[in-house]
Formats: sequence, structure tokens, C-alpha cells
Amino acid sequence: MGNHNNDEKALQMHREWNGKLETTAKSKVNSREDLAVAYTPGVAAPCRVIAEDKSAAYTYTMKANTIAVISDGSAVLGLGNIGAYAAMPVMEGKCVLFKEFGDVNAVPICLDTQDTEDIIRTIRNIAPAYGGINLEDISAPRCFEIEERLNDMLDIPVFHDDQHGTAIVVLSGIINALRVTGKKKEDCRIVVNGAGSAGIAITKLLLSYGFLDITMCDRAGIIGKDYPDLNWMQKKMTEVTNLTNRQGSLADALKGADIFVGVSAPNIVTTEMVASMNQDSILFAMANPDPEILPDIAKAAGARIVGTGRSDFPNQVNNVVAFPGIFKGALQGHATRITEEMKLAAAEAIAGLVSDEELRDDFIMPEAFDPRVADVVSRAVRSCIR
Amino acid sequence: MGNHNNDEKALQMHREWNGKLETTAKSKVNSREDLAVAYTPGVAAPCRVIAEDKSAAYTYTMKANTIAVISDGSAVLGLGNIGAYAAMPVMEGKCVLFKEFGDVNAVPICLDTQDTEDIIRTIRNIAPAYGGINLEDISAPRCFEIEERLNDMLDIPVFHDDQHGTAIVVLSGIINALRVTGKKKEDCRIVVNGAGSAGIAITKLLLSYGFLDITMCDRAGIIGKDYPDLNWMQKKMTEVTNLTNRQGSLADALKGADIFVGVSAPNIVTTEMVASMNQDSILFAMANPDPEILPDIAKAAGARIVGTGRSDFPNQVNNVVAFPGIFKGALQGHATRITEEMKLAAAEAIAGLVSDEELRDDFIMPEAFDPRVADVVSRAVRSCIR
Repeated sequence: MGNHNNDEKALQMHREWNGKLETTAKSKVNSREDLAVAYTPGVAAPCRVIAEDKSAAYTYTMKANTIAVISDGSAVLGLGNIGAYAAMPVMEGKCVLFKEFGDVNAVPICLDTQDTEDIIRTIRNIAPAYGGINLEDISAPRCFEIEERLNDMLDIPVFHDDQHGTAIVVLSGIINALRVTGKKKEDCRIVVNGAGSAGIAITKLLLSYGFLDITMCDRAGIIGKDYPDLNWMQKKMTEVTNLTNRQGSLADALKGADIFVGVSAPNIVTTEMVASMNQDSILFAMANPDPEILPDIAKAAGARIVGTGRSDFPNQVNNVVAFPGIFKGALQGHATRITEEMKLAAAEAIAGLVSDEELRDDFIMPEAFDPRVADVVSRAVRSCIR
Repeated sequence: MGNHNNDEKALQMHREWNGKLETTAKSKVNSREDLAVAYTPGVAAPCRVIAEDKSAAYTYTMKANTIAVISDGSAVLGLGNIGAYAAMPVMEGKCVLFKEFGDVNAVPICLDTQDTEDIIRTIRNIAPAYGGINLEDISAPRCFEIEERLNDMLDIPVFHDDQHGTAIVVLSGIINALRVTGKKKEDCRIVVNGAGSAGIAITKLLLSYGFLDITMCDRAGIIGKDYPDLNWMQKKMTEVTNLTNRQGSLADALKGADIFVGVSAPNIVTTEMVASMNQDSILFAMANPDPEILPDIAKAAGARIVGTGRSDFPNQVNNVVAFPGIFKGALQGHATRITEEMKLAAAEAIAGLVSDEELRDDFIMPEAFDPRVADVVSRAVRSCIR
């Protein structure tokens, strides 16, 4: 992760910021009169209205435009299980991105527990102030249960960005890769390598979109019913993936495949594997910071379109084009869940930002700093709220 | 609470604000380079430092200057148990005051549980991101146990402002009332009416300051060992108050008393009661919005100094002169607790802001908007941190 100079610069800047986020009063308090409206006795009036009808919180409080970014520090970046305190710089950074890209207020909450029941209970208890909850960097398979049960329990959306944000952006890239190559989703064979939270969410969303033939792989090769030590969610995935019960290694899986999606480890895809894929092959090699295969090498071996997680290569898969707009739209529409329909609409909207004129092998993703992104995504999400 | 016009204005302003608080990025993200420092990959560097030494969170994260304002909505203003959602406007308002008066970042957290164990566990779990926790509007006697146990558990200060903020400001007023009247603390007989969270905290702090003779009263009159239905904390208070075992009504208690502190109910102190007090009597009649006795009436009956909770009378007892500076100092000094010594130092500092020249019967408290207050209080608090 970065070299010594970059680390030094990041440390120095973080020391200068001494916190990347601050709170700001929209209601200024410069006089006794101000105080009497924003605080006592005036504040009792909105309190009474909300006590009668709790949906009025969207009118009278910051719930209207505020989410919590919550992690237990169990799976932070490539750093792993570094705990609640060390996760703070990432959660603060995420909150900064919500504000800067989506104009959504976000507060970081780092949980000093990694017990599933305790996490669920804690998040349930603190939910009232927020219009949504973005789960972040929680390890699999706990993240699946935590998200699912909280979504059933709460009347605000709970969204694990490592899963769904990534899935949405990958799908948008694949949609545009199909536009470029002319491939049809019904005909594509996809290999997803890495059966953690991101790989599983990507696979699910690609299935929802209409892809039919997806094979997941992990360290021991192709995942099927006989794969050793699958967790409950991976087991569930064997019911909807690899329906022809392929067996073997990643290399076996890739023979004749159209699309490779890697959320795994550096340099594990070889030129031989790429050469064995179908014509006009599409690779999303998103291991960080070093991809499963470098774009130049993949292209030399026959790949047509290559995306990575890195900003210094073309076709960066960057969640920042999804999560700010997703929550912006969810908040505006008082959504109670981020539905599958919303995720698909968001992916289509992101893909649609690249015009036919712009679209080419090396430009399938809108820029992270494209100022249209958050609004287009939020409109797509809102259009799904009846 | 307020009249119809004031309510309408407060509702209208709250609708316009649509949340009184927002989050703001100190680290702007206008380019890929910015993103690489504030977020990935640069952010990994401070994460690794904090993983080695969690106290580095004060250097690299917003913990340095951020607290959580937490309520379960069980005892909000005069509104009572209105729950987590309806408590939001008050908690947001409190966060606004922390920022505006003390330049302390504060985030509101409203708990959708009123179970003591559940509250303690939840707050323990979310503590890492914050440098302090301000408990607010939690009903007695649960508030005592919640605060005490969290303070034992956590390495950041947990401070219930309804208790200690009020106590500090009352003590500062009493210190100055003694300056005006020339009374000595050793000779004063004090009556505290209202044995809830504020009354108990005031009594404790006045004892810490060196007052010797304090009698507490509640609805059934003087509190002693035979008072019916005392909670555990009220029982504990009988060991340090009313040591001569007085019996009777509030009227009986006030005969010959020097100081009345009311955190109880409107209009329950009569002119006869005031007339029965010692010479140069001092009354803090803080029931809201209507005090235990109106200042003019009390003065006509012989009171020398009268303070209330209201901004439209002289000598307003307003917590806003205490809590922003308390946490500002605690954060700057990385305090792990707000100690009794800090509370006393804060009260003396607040009192000291009124100079000998300014001091008079109707001016014993600094103005809420006195720009010196927060810094003077924060310095007093820091001076107690070794």
C-alpha cells in the first residue's frame, strides 16, 4: 500500500486536518432569540410534532439528509482486522466522500465489538437519528447476516457498500463492455474470482441483471457443491452458480469465458489464462493495489477490455460513482430499503453517462469526478420508490 | 412551553433548516491526488499507526475534537418520556451549542431503547470515534448508574449535563451570591427542592465545594431516612444531607435557610416561605418555564438575590456557560473523566468572569454570550489534568 513518501504525506496531512470531518451549525446562534428558537423553549414544538408522528423527523431534523457510516474494523482495506480505532481514518474518509460527492451528511461510527448479535443490537439502537446506514469493512460472512437482519428490523435502508457499491459499479462497467463488444448477456460466460463479500454481491447482482452462466472461484479453484469449507452464504451461491457443476482450477474456469471479475489477489491471472478466454474478453481485475493481471499484459495476451481498481489505469472501478448518489436518492425518497431494482437502475444510470461517442475499449466508466454522477444515480434510485 | 406564535416560528425555522446540523469536510477532495491522500491508498498509513497505538487517534482522527450527545428520550425538557425520535431536535440543538459556543464537534445519537443494560452496552460499543460522551435527558435514577458504569468502563469522559452542567452553573451563581452578600459557606443552610438528577447533582457538588448543611426536599416534603419510596441514589443522599434529621414540609425546611435551590415545579414557593428565610436570602428558582417563585414577588417578600432558568429575568442559570468549555478542555487535555476537581474549577472560573465592579444583586452570572466563557472554563478544566 503506497510507498514511504506517500505514507509520509498522508500522515502529515492527517495530522494537519486532525480529523477530516467536522460538524457545522445550519442554525446559527448569535442572540438570545436565536437560542430560543433553535433550543429551548422553541425546540419543544418540533419535538411534540415528531412525538405524534415520527415520520416528521424527515421534516424537522437532520435525519432528512444524514446517514451513519458504521464499521467494526474487521476487514479494513487490505489491512484486515485492525479494529474500531484504527478503522476511523477510513470511516471519516468515507463520510467526507459522501459529503463532497453526494452532499449527504455522514457520521462515522466505529464499533468496539465484533460479535454479530451485539453489532445488530447496537446499530438497531442508534438508528433513529439517521435516514440510512452504510455498513463498511465488515468481514464475511458476518456482513451478510448483519445487513439482512438490520434491513428486516429497521425502516431505513442498510447498505453494505463493500458488497453492493462494488457490485453496482462492476455491473455498470460490464453493461458498457457489452455495448463496446456487442456481446449479449444471455450468451456470456462469467468467472468471478474471490468468494468474499464483494464477489458474492457482484455475482448476485449480475444474476439479477440477467446473466445466466456465472462460475465462482476461490483459493481452491472452482466453487461447487464439493468445495471444502464453504460458509452458509457461499453454499447458498452454489444453488445459483456453476449450474453445470464445472470442476477444476481458475485456469479451467477461464477457458472459453467471456468475462473475468477478480476481487481476489495480485498477479494470479496468467497470460495463458487470458489467451484461453473467448474472443473480445473482458477483465475486471480489482485486487488492490496490484490487480490480478496488469492491463498491458492482459491486452497483449488478447483481452479487449480491462478495468482495475486503480486510478492510474483506464476504466477504474471506483465505488465513489455509486454510494453517494445511492444514499442521496434513498434519503430524498425516504426509502426504507435499497432494493435490487434500485441497484440495477443505478448501474444502468452510471453506464448511461458514457455516451456512444465517448465509449471505447479504454473508456467504459464515467470519471469519478464527473459532476453529473451523483444526481443521475440519485434520480435512478428515486424513480424506483413508489 | 412558549405560546402559539413562538411555536409556529420554531416549526417554520426547523422546516427551513431541515436539520440544524451538518457535516463538513476539512479535507477537500477535488482531484485524484486529494482522494489518494484522504482516502485510499493514503489513508492506510494513519490506520496502521493507530493500530499500533490507539492514542494516536487523537492525532489523526476527529476523536481529537468530537463528542457524542446521547439521549434515550426518557426525560426531554419538560416534555417527559417522548422517545428517541422526538428527542432529536433537542439533541441536534445541543450539538449546535457545543459547536457555536465551544468549537467542539458534536454528533447527536438517539437511542431506541430505555433499558439500562442495553444503553450501557450500546454506548460502550460506539465510543471509539469520540473524545467524550455527553449524556442528555435520561431519566433518574437510571442516569446515575448509566453514567457511573460507563465512566468506569471507558477511557473517555462521560458527563450527564442535566446533572453536572446544571450543578456547575448553580455553584458558580452561589459563589457569586456569597461574594455579594458576604455570607460564608460554612454558615449557610441550603434547601434543594427536587430530588431528581439535577437536584442530586447540585447537592453533591455543593457538598464537594464545602457547604455543610443541605436539606433536600421533594413532593412529600423534607427528605430523610423515613421518606417514602426513595430510589437508591436518593437513599444514598440521606447519608450526607439533613444530618439533624429535620422533618416536615418545604415551608418547614425553608425557615431560617440562607439559600433555596429549586429544580422542581412552578409557583410552589410562597411569599411566606421567603419571608421565613434568613436575612439576605438567595433563591435559585429554576423550574421551567415558570419558576418556583417569580423574582419580583420573591424580592418583595425579602429575598436579596434571585436567579432563574429564564433569559428574560436577571441572573439566568444557563448550562451553556458550562458544557461547551468543559468538553473543550477535556478534549484538549485528553481527559479520561470529568472529575469533581474539574467541576469545582469550572464553577470558580465561571464565577470569576464577573468582576468585583460588575458584581451586584442582579448580576451574579456571566452572560451566556460572553465570548470569554468557553476558553476560561476549558483552561480551568485543563489545569486539573496532570
